[in-house]
Amino acid sequence: MALTIGVDIGGTKIASGVVAEDGRILDRALRPTPADSPELVADAIADAVAELAARHAVEAVGLGAAGFVDETRSNVRFAPNLAWREEPLRKKVTELVGLPVVVENDANATAWGEYRFGAGRGESHVVCVALGTGIGGGIVLGGDLYRGRWGMGAELGHMQVVPEGLPCGCGNHGCWEQYASGNALVRQARINAAADPSAAARLLDLAGGAPDGIVGQHVTAAAREGDAAALAAFEFVAGWLAQGLADLAAVLDPGCFIIGGGVSGAADLFLDRVRDDYAARLTGRGHRPLAGIRAAELGPAAGMVGAADLARLR
Amino acid sequence: MALTIGVDIGGTKIASGVVAEDGRILDRALRPTPADSPELVADAIADAVAELAARHAVEAVGLGAAGFVDETRSNVRFAPNLAWREEPLRKKVTELVGLPVVVENDANATAWGEYRFGAGRGESHVVCVALGTGIGGGIVLGGDLYRGRWGMGAELGHMQVVPEGLPCGCGNHGCWEQYASGNALVRQARINAAADPSAAARLLDLAGGAPDGIVGQHVTAAAREGDAAALAAFEFVAGWLAQGLADLAAVLDPGCFIIGGGVSGAADLFLDRVRDDYAARLTGRGHRPLAGIRAAELGPAAGMVGAADLARLR
Repeated sequence: MALTIGVDIGGTKIASGVVAEDGRILDRALRPTPADSPELVADAIADAVAELAARHAVEAVGLGAAGFVDETRSNVRFAPNLAWREEPLRKKVTELVGLPVVVENDANATAWGEYRFGAGRGESHVVCVALGTGIGGGIVLGGDLYRGRWGMGAELGHMQVVPEGLPCGCGNHGCWEQYASGNALVRQARINAAADPSAAARLLDLAGGAPDGIVGQHVTAAAREGDAAALAAFEFVAGWLAQGLADLAAVLDPGCFIIGGGVSGAADLFLDRVRDDYAARLTGRGHRPLAGIRAAELGPAAGMVGAADLARLR
Repeated sequence: MALTIGVDIGGTKIASGVVAEDGRILDRALRPTPADSPELVADAIADAVAELAARHAVEAVGLGAAGFVDETRSNVRFAPNLAWREEPLRKKVTELVGLPVVVENDANATAWGEYRFGAGRGESHVVCVALGTGIGGGIVLGGDLYRGRWGMGAELGHMQVVPEGLPCGCGNHGCWEQYASGNALVRQARINAAADPSAAARLLDLAGGAPDGIVGQHVTAAAREGDAAALAAFEFVAGWLAQGLADLAAVLDPGCFIIGGGVSGAADLFLDRVRDDYAARLTGRGHRPLAGIRAAELGPAAGMVGAADLARLR
């Protein structure tokens, strides 16, 4: 059985794993991310790969990188949270590990993992929306990972949904990820709790009393106990998520959407609302099939598994 | 040389033509559209095809239909301006004309025509935006016409750009085509002229004195003569057009955009502004190439030419 290594390079850690043809993770290695130095990042990747390759016969390495990866799948043009600027990541890592290497945007790798082994199995046209700090977007069309003309496709979180809306780290205003993401959920919960503490008793209790202490787990836990402010925060995110999915359906008409990222662990709290709002907002509703809206299945390992599979299919 | 017939089925007329492999139109036939009767539409198409087939050796027929065409390229699920509901158009016309028939959404056929023989030649990833009553959208990705999972893709005019915005014929509010289209240009010119007639002297003169008399040609003619209200209407449409293109670039990262439809005849009045605004609004600007933004080249015949070519490549 052909084995490959998938590497998920995040802003704080580098998660590597040996992945089998059926998507199972057979072994793992973890390193902290030396975020300030492209050379040290390449060294850390190579070190983890060497550790795994010493224990398994692997044939290739797939890197999922949190940045803009060019259409040759070789270079990272820019990364918001790492020191990469026109970084020849494929070349550097290939020289260090002596194996074929492919580089992919991390959200693309996640979408590919879910398409092949997770919630997208059996579909042909899949849009993956991972809700975390922002939105990680990935698109599979006709069974192929969609990259765009220059590799910059599927930056879904940066569609504008509100003109002159909330400022975004990308420099624009009103981007989707400011309204539908883990960060948006927490921000809205804090706003709700500050505006009406009496409706946020459980949420504030969990957070130590102050709205600024609220984090994602507090919102989920309080919502499960019926806290009105926490439930309203989920409704806010669900509504904006549904609107963006309807916009994407107007463009891409996918067979299904996969909702991933940390927030998707609370899918039972908001996904039905997303489905209802999506069905109500879809253009041409009543004259077209409704895409499925599903929670991701692979969790945080989807990017590693997807990157490994893309290396196998290189 | 293999010849095919392209048929552009609009709400008022059915324009047919014999098209050569290089996209040249060798002959034409025109019929009015019997909008109330699917049977009479099929008969009119067959009549025009028979007229052309009597004069040329043609091998197939491509139909461009203003409606939702399913993924089998056979049936029109719904058409806003014709009596089609789950209409088996391919089957009906095939039986009447005795030639292979393919059915395509008219805006998709237009995009394909521009990609093959017009402003998109040599590109691989093209998004076509035709500004008319609404927006006709078509997408070519990796050299293939993009249809979506169920054939409903590229309904670009129905991305929402303004929450709770202007009502749209699709039943939603704030759709892009309400802000960037020929209709939007005229509406904005009328609003401008009503609000400040002194800044719309030439525009009102052309329109016979009243804002409600303003039509598209008046706006273009007045803008060319420096009328402030007409120029402001073009700036309004240019700004919203640029925003929607930036949103589409976040999703699709195309190599070029093609701006078609009636408004594109005035491309010199607004396309530079669109390019500037697009460059200023694009997410990741400075770290990615800028897609070209070009005026369509084939005019109203693009749909017929594209449909004929799709029939050839069936």
